[in-house]
Amino acid sequence: MAPACRPRRYHERVTTHEMNPWRRLSRRIAYRNPWIEVLHDEVVRPDGRSGIYGVVHFLHRAIGVVPLDTDTDRVLLVGQYRYPLDRYSWEVPEGGGGFDEDPEAAARRELTEETGYAGGKWRELWRGDLSNSVTDEVAIMFVATGLAVGPASPEGTEELATRWVPFDQAMRMIAAGEIRDAMSIIALQRLALERASGWSPKAQTSDAQEADGE
Amino acid sequence: MAPACRPRRYHERVTTHEMNPWRRLSRRIAYRNPWIEVLHDEVVRPDGRSGIYGVVHFLHRAIGVVPLDTDTDRVLLVGQYRYPLDRYSWEVPEGGGGFDEDPEAAARRELTEETGYAGGKWRELWRGDLSNSVTDEVAIMFVATGLAVGPASPEGTEELATRWVPFDQAMRMIAAGEIRDAMSIIALQRLALERASGWSPKAQTSDAQEADGE
Repeated sequence: MAPACRPRRYHERVTTHEMNPWRRLSRRIAYRNPWIEVLHDEVVRPDGRSGIYGVVHFLHRAIGVVPLDTDTDRVLLVGQYRYPLDRYSWEVPEGGGGFDEDPEAAARRELTEETGYAGGKWRELWRGDLSNSVTDEVAIMFVATGLAVGPASPEGTEELATRWVPFDQAMRMIAAGEIRDAMSIIALQRLALERASGWSPKAQTSDAQEADGE
Repeated sequence: MAPACRPRRYHERVTTHEMNPWRRLSRRIAYRNPWIEVLHDEVVRPDGRSGIYGVVHFLHRAIGVVPLDTDTDRVLLVGQYRYPLDRYSWEVPEGGGGFDEDPEAAARRELTEETGYAGGKWRELWRGDLSNSVTDEVAIMFVATGLAVGPASPEGTEELATRWVPFDQAMRMIAAGEIRDAMSIIALQRLALERASGWSPKAQTSDAQEADGE
Protein backbone atom coordinates (compact mmCIF):
# COMPACT_ATOMS: atom_id res chain seq x y z
CA MET A 1 0.00 0.00 0.00
CA ALA A 2 1.42 3.42 -0.94
CA PRO A 3 1.84 5.85 1.96
CA ALA A 4 -0.70 8.26 0.44
CA CYS A 5 -3.37 5.52 0.65
CA ARG A 6 -2.81 4.94 4.37
CA PRO A 7 -5.68 6.03 6.61
CA ARG A 8 -4.79 9.10 8.62
CA ARG A 9 -4.50 7.14 11.86
CA TYR A 10 -1.42 5.37 10.52
CA HIS A 11 0.92 7.85 12.06
CA GLU A 12 4.43 6.44 11.53
CA ARG A 13 8.01 7.59 11.83
CA VAL A 14 10.00 5.37 9.51
CA THR A 15 13.74 5.90 9.64
CA THR A 16 15.95 5.02 6.71
CA HIS A 17 18.85 4.03 8.97
CA GLU A 18 19.20 1.84 12.06
CA MET A 19 22.41 3.41 13.38
CA ASN A 20 23.51 3.64 17.01
CA PRO A 21 22.40 7.06 18.32
CA TRP A 22 24.35 6.54 21.59
CA ARG A 23 28.01 7.46 22.12
CA ARG A 24 30.04 5.84 24.90
CA LEU A 25 32.51 8.13 26.69
CA SER A 26 33.81 5.71 29.32
CA ARG A 27 33.17 2.25 30.72
CA ARG A 28 34.11 0.66 34.03
CA ILE A 29 33.29 -2.74 35.49
CA ALA A 30 31.18 -1.89 38.53
CA TYR A 31 30.63 -5.52 39.61
CA ARG A 32 31.66 -8.95 38.47
CA ASN A 33 30.93 -12.50 39.58
CA PRO A 34 31.17 -15.79 37.64
CA TRP A 35 27.79 -15.15 35.96
CA ILE A 36 27.47 -11.42 35.26
CA GLU A 37 29.47 -8.25 34.74
CA VAL A 38 27.83 -4.90 35.51
CA LEU A 39 29.23 -2.20 33.23
CA HIS A 40 28.79 1.44 34.19
CA ASP A 41 29.05 3.63 31.09
CA GLU A 42 29.16 7.39 30.74
CA VAL A 43 27.32 8.17 27.51
CA VAL A 44 26.01 10.84 25.19
CA ARG A 45 22.32 10.06 24.78
CA PRO A 46 20.35 10.15 21.51
CA ASP A 47 19.24 13.73 22.32
CA GLY A 48 22.87 14.86 22.68
CA ARG A 49 22.79 15.22 26.46
CA SER A 50 25.19 13.40 28.77
CA GLY A 51 23.98 10.48 30.81
CA ILE A 52 24.84 7.05 32.22
CA TYR A 53 23.91 3.49 31.30
CA GLY A 54 24.32 0.46 33.54
CA VAL A 55 24.53 -2.69 31.43
CA VAL A 56 24.24 -6.17 32.91
CA HIS A 57 26.45 -8.30 30.68
CA PHE A 58 25.76 -12.03 30.94
CA LEU A 59 28.78 -14.35 30.79
CA HIS A 60 26.66 -17.27 29.58
CA ARG A 61 23.67 -17.81 27.32
CA ALA A 62 20.42 -19.00 28.86
CA ILE A 63 19.42 -22.30 27.28
CA GLY A 64 16.38 -24.47 27.88
CA VAL A 65 14.35 -27.33 26.52
CA VAL A 66 10.75 -28.52 26.46
CA PRO A 67 10.99 -32.29 27.04
CA LEU A 68 7.96 -33.68 25.22
CA ASP A 69 6.60 -37.23 25.40
CA THR A 70 4.68 -37.52 22.14
CA ASP A 71 3.05 -40.85 23.15
CA THR A 72 1.17 -39.30 26.08
CA ASP A 73 1.52 -35.62 25.08
CA ARG A 74 3.16 -34.60 28.34
CA VAL A 75 5.94 -32.11 29.02
CA LEU A 76 8.47 -32.28 31.83
CA LEU A 77 8.46 -29.33 34.24
CA VAL A 78 11.00 -28.62 36.95
CA GLY A 79 10.16 -26.81 40.17
CA GLN A 80 12.78 -24.85 42.04
CA TYR A 81 13.13 -21.93 44.38
CA ARG A 82 14.36 -18.94 42.35
CA TYR A 83 16.60 -16.96 44.66
CA PRO A 84 16.33 -13.59 42.82
CA LEU A 85 12.52 -13.75 42.89
CA ASP A 86 12.36 -15.17 46.44
CA ARG A 87 9.65 -17.46 45.10
CA TYR A 88 9.14 -21.04 43.95
CA SER A 89 8.85 -21.41 40.17
CA TRP A 90 7.67 -24.16 37.81
CA GLU A 91 9.48 -24.03 34.46
CA VAL A 92 10.90 -26.18 31.73
CA PRO A 93 14.50 -27.34 32.35
CA GLU A 94 16.95 -24.48 31.86
CA GLY A 95 20.58 -23.68 32.47
CA GLY A 96 23.59 -21.77 31.21
CA GLY A 97 25.80 -22.42 28.21
CA GLY A 98 29.15 -20.94 27.28
CA PHE A 99 29.37 -18.70 24.22
CA ASP A 100 31.93 -21.13 22.80
CA GLU A 101 29.67 -24.11 23.48
CA ASP A 102 27.13 -25.63 21.12
CA PRO A 103 23.73 -24.55 22.53
CA GLU A 104 22.12 -27.95 21.97
CA ALA A 105 25.02 -29.70 23.72
CA ALA A 106 24.65 -27.28 26.64
CA ALA A 107 20.91 -27.87 26.81
CA ARG A 108 21.39 -31.66 26.68
CA ARG A 109 23.92 -31.46 29.52
CA GLU A 110 21.67 -29.27 31.69
CA LEU A 111 18.64 -31.50 31.07
CA THR A 112 20.53 -34.63 32.08
CA GLU A 113 22.06 -32.99 35.15
CA GLU A 114 18.73 -31.64 36.33
CA THR A 115 16.40 -34.49 35.44
CA GLY A 116 18.37 -37.54 34.30
CA TYR A 117 16.77 -37.49 30.84
CA ALA A 118 19.04 -37.88 27.81
CA GLY A 119 19.14 -38.80 24.13
CA GLY A 120 16.17 -38.20 21.85
CA LYS A 121 15.52 -35.89 18.92
CA TRP A 122 16.15 -32.19 19.41
CA ARG A 123 15.00 -29.11 17.47
CA GLU A 124 15.71 -25.45 18.10
CA LEU A 125 12.47 -23.52 18.76
CA TRP A 126 13.59 -19.97 19.47
CA ARG A 127 16.48 -17.65 20.18
CA GLY A 128 16.11 -14.08 21.34
CA ASP A 129 16.67 -11.43 23.99
CA LEU A 130 15.12 -11.75 27.44
CA SER A 131 15.46 -8.26 28.92
CA ASN A 132 16.96 -5.74 26.55
CA SER A 133 16.50 -2.49 28.49
CA VAL A 134 19.29 -3.37 30.93
CA THR A 135 20.82 -6.75 29.98
CA ASP A 136 22.30 -8.47 26.93
CA GLU A 137 21.06 -11.90 28.00
CA VAL A 138 20.39 -14.21 25.06
CA ALA A 139 18.15 -17.26 25.37
CA ILE A 140 17.99 -20.33 23.14
CA MET A 141 15.15 -22.84 23.49
CA PHE A 142 14.73 -26.38 22.15
CA VAL A 143 12.09 -29.09 22.08
CA ALA A 144 13.20 -32.68 22.66
CA THR A 145 11.25 -35.87 21.98
CA GLY A 146 12.03 -39.57 22.52
CA LEU A 147 14.08 -38.96 25.70
CA ALA A 148 15.33 -41.84 27.86
CA VAL A 149 15.70 -41.63 31.64
CA GLY A 150 18.92 -42.09 33.62
CA PRO A 151 20.35 -40.77 36.89
CA ALA A 152 20.20 -37.02 37.60
CA SER A 153 23.08 -35.08 39.16
CA PRO A 154 21.87 -31.58 40.01
CA GLU A 155 24.40 -28.90 40.94
CA GLY A 156 24.75 -27.79 44.54
CA THR A 157 22.84 -24.64 43.67
CA GLU A 158 19.85 -26.67 42.48
CA GLU A 159 17.19 -28.44 44.53
CA LEU A 160 14.73 -29.55 41.92
CA ALA A 161 11.37 -31.23 41.73
CA THR A 162 10.14 -32.68 38.43
CA ARG A 163 6.64 -33.32 37.07
CA TRP A 164 5.30 -34.60 33.74
CA VAL A 165 2.14 -32.64 32.95
CA PRO A 166 -0.19 -32.86 29.92
CA PHE A 167 0.72 -30.23 27.30
CA ASP A 168 -2.72 -28.60 27.58
CA GLN A 169 -2.32 -28.37 31.34
CA ALA A 170 1.02 -26.59 30.90
CA MET A 171 -0.76 -24.04 28.68
CA ARG A 172 -3.44 -23.61 31.35
CA MET A 173 -0.68 -23.10 33.95
CA ILE A 174 0.63 -20.22 31.80
CA ALA A 175 -2.84 -18.67 31.56
CA ALA A 176 -3.30 -19.02 35.33
CA GLY A 177 0.09 -17.47 36.12
CA GLU A 178 1.40 -20.76 37.57
CA ILE A 179 4.17 -20.77 34.97
CA ARG A 180 5.62 -17.23 34.91
CA ASP A 181 9.06 -17.80 33.37
CA ALA A 182 9.47 -16.02 30.01
CA MET A 183 11.71 -18.65 28.37
CA SER A 184 9.34 -21.48 29.28
CA ILE A 185 6.33 -19.52 28.07
CA ILE A 186 7.80 -18.53 24.71
CA ALA A 187 8.78 -22.14 23.96
CA LEU A 188 5.45 -23.64 25.06
CA GLN A 189 3.44 -20.97 23.19
CA ARG A 190 5.48 -21.66 20.07
CA LEU A 191 4.69 -25.36 20.28
CA ALA A 192 1.00 -24.56 20.85
CA LEU A 193 0.98 -22.34 17.74
CA GLU A 194 2.56 -25.12 15.69
CA ARG A 195 -0.23 -27.43 16.84
CA ALA A 196 -2.88 -24.84 16.01
CA SER A 197 -1.50 -24.59 12.48
CA GLY A 198 -1.60 -28.37 12.03
CA TRP A 199 2.09 -29.04 12.55
CA SER A 200 2.75 -32.40 14.23
CA PRO A 201 5.76 -33.09 16.49
CA LYS A 202 5.22 -36.82 15.99
CA ALA A 203 5.58 -36.49 12.23
CA GLN A 204 8.66 -34.33 12.72
CA THR A 205 10.28 -36.96 14.95
CA SER A 206 9.59 -39.69 12.43
CA ASP A 207 11.03 -37.61 9.60
CA ALA A 208 14.17 -36.92 11.63
CA GLN A 209 14.60 -40.62 12.36
CA GLU A 210 14.23 -41.51 8.71
CA ALA A 211 16.72 -38.83 7.76
CA ASP A 212 19.19 -40.22 10.31
CA GLY A 213 18.77 -43.70 8.89
CA GLU A 214 19.74 -42.73 5.35
CA MET B 1 -3.46 -41.89 37.00
CA ALA B 2 -1.96 -43.60 40.08
CA PRO B 3 1.86 -43.55 40.29
CA ALA B 4 2.02 -47.35 39.95
CA CYS B 5 0.33 -47.10 36.52
CA ARG B 6 2.85 -44.58 35.19
CA PRO B 7 5.14 -45.88 32.46
CA ARG B 8 8.67 -46.40 33.80
CA ARG B 9 9.95 -43.39 31.83
CA TYR B 10 7.92 -41.02 34.03
CA HIS B 11 10.78 -40.47 36.41
CA GLU B 12 9.68 -37.67 38.75
CA ARG B 13 10.83 -36.10 41.97
CA VAL B 14 7.75 -34.52 43.49
CA THR B 15 8.39 -32.48 46.63
CA THR B 16 5.68 -31.90 49.19
CA HIS B 17 7.02 -28.44 50.06
CA GLU B 18 8.14 -25.40 48.07
CA MET B 19 10.33 -23.84 50.75
CA ASN B 20 13.38 -21.66 50.24
CA PRO B 21 16.45 -23.94 50.39
CA TRP B 22 18.82 -20.90 50.36
CA ARG B 23 20.00 -19.03 53.44
CA ARG B 24 21.32 -15.47 53.18
CA LEU B 25 24.27 -14.62 55.43
CA SER B 26 24.92 -11.05 54.25
CA ARG B 27 23.86 -8.55 51.60
CA ARG B 28 25.57 -5.45 50.24
CA ILE B 29 24.59 -3.09 47.45
CA ALA B 30 27.38 -3.53 44.91
CA TYR B 31 25.98 -1.05 42.37
CA ARG B 32 23.03 1.27 42.09
CA ASN B 33 21.67 3.62 39.44
CA PRO B 34 18.15 5.00 38.91
CA TRP B 35 17.04 1.76 37.22
CA ILE B 36 18.75 -1.17 38.98
CA GLU B 37 20.40 -2.23 42.22
CA VAL B 38 22.96 -5.03 42.15
CA LEU B 39 22.90 -6.95 45.43
CA HIS B 40 25.86 -9.14 46.35
CA ASP B 41 24.78 -11.81 48.81
CA GLU B 42 26.80 -14.34 50.76
CA VAL B 43 24.64 -17.44 51.01
CA VAL B 44 24.38 -21.01 52.16
CA ARG B 45 23.37 -22.96 49.06
CA PRO B 46 20.75 -25.72 48.88
CA ASP B 47 23.51 -28.34 49.30
CA GLY B 48 24.69 -26.69 52.53
CA ARG B 49 27.89 -25.24 51.09
CA SER B 50 28.73 -21.54 51.21
CA GLY B 51 28.48 -19.45 48.06
CA ILE B 52 27.54 -16.08 46.60
CA TYR B 53 24.56 -14.78 44.62
CA GLY B 54 24.51 -11.54 42.63
CA VAL B 55 20.92 -10.35 42.24
CA VAL B 56 19.94 -7.59 39.81
CA HIS B 57 17.00 -5.89 41.50
CA PHE B 58 14.87 -3.79 39.14
CA LEU B 59 13.51 -0.51 40.53
CA HIS B 60 10.64 -0.50 38.00
CA ARG B 61 8.36 -3.01 36.35
CA ALA B 62 8.66 -3.54 32.61
CA ILE B 63 5.35 -2.75 30.98
CA GLY B 64 4.32 -2.94 27.33
CA VAL B 65 1.37 -2.96 24.98
CA VAL B 66 0.38 -4.44 21.64
CA PRO B 67 -1.45 -1.58 19.84
CA LEU B 68 -3.92 -3.38 17.57
CA ASP B 69 -6.02 -1.84 14.80
CA THR B 70 -8.88 -4.32 14.50
CA ASP B 71 -10.22 -2.72 11.26
CA THR B 72 -7.07 -3.53 9.30
CA ASP B 73 -5.57 -6.15 11.66
CA ARG B 74 -2.29 -4.29 12.08
CA VAL B 75 -0.06 -3.89 15.13
CA LEU B 76 2.20 -0.95 15.89
CA LEU B 77 5.89 -1.75 16.23
CA VAL B 78 8.61 0.59 17.43
CA GLY B 79 12.21 0.39 16.27
CA GLN B 80 15.04 1.57 18.45
CA TYR B 81 18.69 0.97 19.12
CA ARG B 82 18.98 -1.13 22.28
CA TYR B 83 22.16 0.03 23.99
CA PRO B 84 22.75 -3.14 26.09
CA LEU B 85 22.48 -5.34 22.98
CA ASP B 86 24.40 -2.91 20.76
CA ARG B 87 21.79 -3.71 18.11
CA TYR B 88 18.65 -2.23 16.55
CA SER B 89 15.45 -3.90 17.70
CA TRP B 90 11.82 -3.92 16.50
CA GLU B 91 9.37 -4.44 19.35
CA VAL B 92 5.97 -3.43 20.62
CA PRO B 93 5.96 -0.20 22.68
CA GLU B 94 7.47 -0.76 26.13
CA GLY B 95 8.66 1.23 29.09
CA GLY B 96 9.00 1.27 32.85
CA GLY B 97 6.36 1.68 35.54
CA GLY B 98 6.74 2.35 39.26
CA PHE B 99 5.70 -0.35 41.72
CA ASP B 100 3.26 2.16 43.22
CA GLU B 101 1.84 2.98 39.76
CA ASP B 102 -1.11 1.32 38.06
CA PRO B 103 0.47 -0.82 35.30
CA GLU B 104 -2.15 0.12 32.70
CA ALA B 105 -1.67 3.84 33.46
CA ALA B 106 2.09 3.38 33.07
CA ALA B 107 1.64 1.54 29.77
CA ARG B 108 -0.75 4.21 28.48
CA ARG B 109 1.76 6.94 29.39
CA GLU B 110 4.68 5.14 27.72
CA LEU B 111 2.65 4.43 24.58
CA THR B 112 1.63 8.06 24.21
CA GLU B 113 5.16 9.35 24.90
CA GLU B 114 6.72 6.98 22.41
CA THR B 115 4.14 6.98 19.63
CA GLY B 116 1.48 9.65 20.25
CA TYR B 117 -1.31 7.05 20.45
CA ALA B 118 -3.81 7.31 23.32
CA GLY B 119 -7.27 6.27 24.47
CA GLY B 120 -8.87 3.03 23.35
CA LYS B 121 -9.79 -0.18 25.11
CA TRP B 122 -7.11 -1.97 27.09
CA ARG B 123 -6.82 -5.54 28.39
CA GLU B 124 -4.03 -7.19 30.38
CA LEU B 125 -2.51 -10.09 28.45
CA TRP B 126 0.28 -11.38 30.67
CA ARG B 127 2.42 -10.78 33.69
CA GLY B 128 5.52 -12.77 34.55
CA ASP B 129 9.25 -12.93 35.11
CA LEU B 130 11.69 -12.10 32.33
CA SER B 131 15.01 -13.46 33.56
CA ASN B 132 14.77 -15.26 36.89
CA SER B 133 18.26 -16.75 37.20
CA VAL B 134 19.80 -13.34 38.00
CA THR B 135 17.07 -10.66 38.04
CA ASP B 136 13.71 -10.05 39.69
CA GLU B 137 12.38 -8.10 36.69
CA VAL B 138 8.60 -8.37 36.34
CA ALA B 139 6.85 -7.63 33.04
CA ILE B 140 3.19 -6.78 32.45
CA MET B 141 1.76 -6.76 28.92
CA PHE B 142 -1.47 -5.33 27.51
CA VAL B 143 -3.34 -5.24 24.23
CA ALA B 144 -5.02 -1.97 23.22
CA THR B 145 -7.62 -1.43 20.50
CA GLY B 146 -9.38 1.69 19.20
CA LEU B 147 -6.41 4.00 19.78
CA ALA B 148 -6.41 7.61 18.55
CA VAL B 149 -3.29 9.41 17.38
CA GLY B 150 -1.82 12.57 18.88
CA PRO B 151 1.64 14.10 19.26
CA ALA B 152 4.50 11.93 20.58
CA SER B 153 7.08 13.16 23.09
CA PRO B 154 9.84 10.55 23.38
CA GLU B 155 12.35 10.82 26.22
CA GLY B 156 15.89 11.96 25.52
CA THR B 157 17.02 8.36 25.82
CA GLU B 158 14.68 7.29 23.01
CA GLU B 159 15.05 7.72 19.26
CA LEU B 160 12.18 5.75 17.90
CA ALA B 161 10.80 4.68 14.55
CA THR B 162 7.23 3.36 14.32
CA ARG B 163 5.58 0.99 11.82
CA TRP B 164 2.10 -0.50 11.53
CA VAL B 165 2.48 -4.08 10.28
CA PRO B 166 -0.16 -6.74 9.60
CA PHE B 167 -0.56 -9.10 12.58
CA ASP B 168 0.46 -12.12 10.49
CA GLN B 169 3.58 -10.28 9.36
CA ALA B 170 4.51 -9.60 13.00
CA MET B 171 4.22 -13.34 13.66
CA ARG B 172 6.44 -14.04 10.65
CA MET B 173 8.94 -11.49 12.01
CA ILE B 174 9.09 -13.52 15.23
CA ALA B 175 9.65 -16.76 13.30
CA ALA B 176 12.40 -15.08 11.22
CA GLY B 177 14.16 -13.65 14.29
CA GLU B 178 13.36 -10.06 13.22
CA ILE B 179 11.46 -9.56 16.47
CA ARG B 180 13.66 -10.98 19.25
CA ASP B 181 12.31 -9.21 22.32
CA ALA B 182 10.78 -11.63 24.86
CA MET B 183 8.00 -9.32 26.11
CA SER B 184 6.83 -8.55 22.57
CA ILE B 185 6.90 -12.21 21.59
CA ILE B 186 4.95 -13.47 24.61
CA ALA B 187 2.22 -10.86 24.03
CA LEU B 188 1.96 -11.44 20.26
CA GLN B 189 2.00 -15.23 20.62
CA ARG B 190 -0.72 -14.99 23.27
CA LEU B 191 -2.88 -13.02 20.84
CA ALA B 192 -2.15 -15.51 18.07
CA LEU B 193 -3.22 -18.39 20.34
CA GLU B 194 -6.46 -16.56 21.18
CA ARG B 195 -7.15 -16.26 17.45
CA ALA B 196 -6.33 -19.93 16.87
CA SER B 197 -8.88 -20.87 19.54
CA GLY B 198 -11.56 -18.74 17.89
CA TRP B 199 -11.37 -15.80 20.29
CA SER B 200 -12.07 -12.44 18.61
CA PRO B 201 -10.54 -9.15 19.74
CA LYS B 202 -13.29 -7.26 17.87
CA ALA B 203 -15.97 -9.03 19.87
CA GLN B 204 -14.07 -8.34 23.08
CA THR B 205 -13.89 -4.62 22.27
CA SER B 206 -17.62 -4.47 21.63
CA ASP B 207 -18.36 -6.26 24.91
CA ALA B 208 -16.13 -3.83 26.79
CA GLN B 209 -17.86 -0.86 25.18
CA GLU B 210 -21.26 -2.25 26.09
CA ALA B 211 -20.11 -2.86 29.66
CA ASP B 212 -18.82 0.71 29.87
CA GLY B 213 -22.18 2.01 28.68
CA GLU B 214 -24.18 0.32 31.42
